[in-house]
Amino acid sequence: MTQTAHLTVEGMSCEGCAKRLREALEGVDGVSAVAVVLDGGQVTIAYDPTVTTVAGLREAVEETGFDAVP
Amino acid sequence: MTQTAHLTVEGMSCEGCAKRLREALEGVDGVSAVAVVLDGGQVTIAYDPTVTTVAGLREAVEETGFDAVP
Repeated sequence: MTQTAHLTVEGMSCEGCAKRLREALEGVDGVSAVAVVLDGGQVTIAYDPTVTTVAGLREAVEETGFDAVP
Repeated sequence: MTQTAHLTVEGMSCEGCAKRLREALEGVDGVSAVAVVLDGGQVTIAYDPTVTTVAGLREAVEETGFDAVP
């Protein structure tokens, strides 16, 4: 089963930022797909809710130094 | 006692990248000062070697998604 989470992430200002965030989220167990729109900081994540949670996804965002807006 | 480490970090492409890397290193216990030069990826870190190590500094770099070149 796959669910989709939408996060707004602050702090991305170049394609390198977006790439690093995407790779960090792709590295989370249970995540199957990540789309990052640099402009506006919109991040869409497909994940298996039996493996990870939105809280876990937010944690991965914060670990890279970006802020996941509530 | 303070020692100084020089690392070369790949993957920074904007001032936001440099800021996030600097903040990550400043958050490491034992680190007293960090200077990041975006162009060329030169990072200079003042740290207390009784609290952290160059390996610990490299780990903090990698956690942000950047690469610390050997």
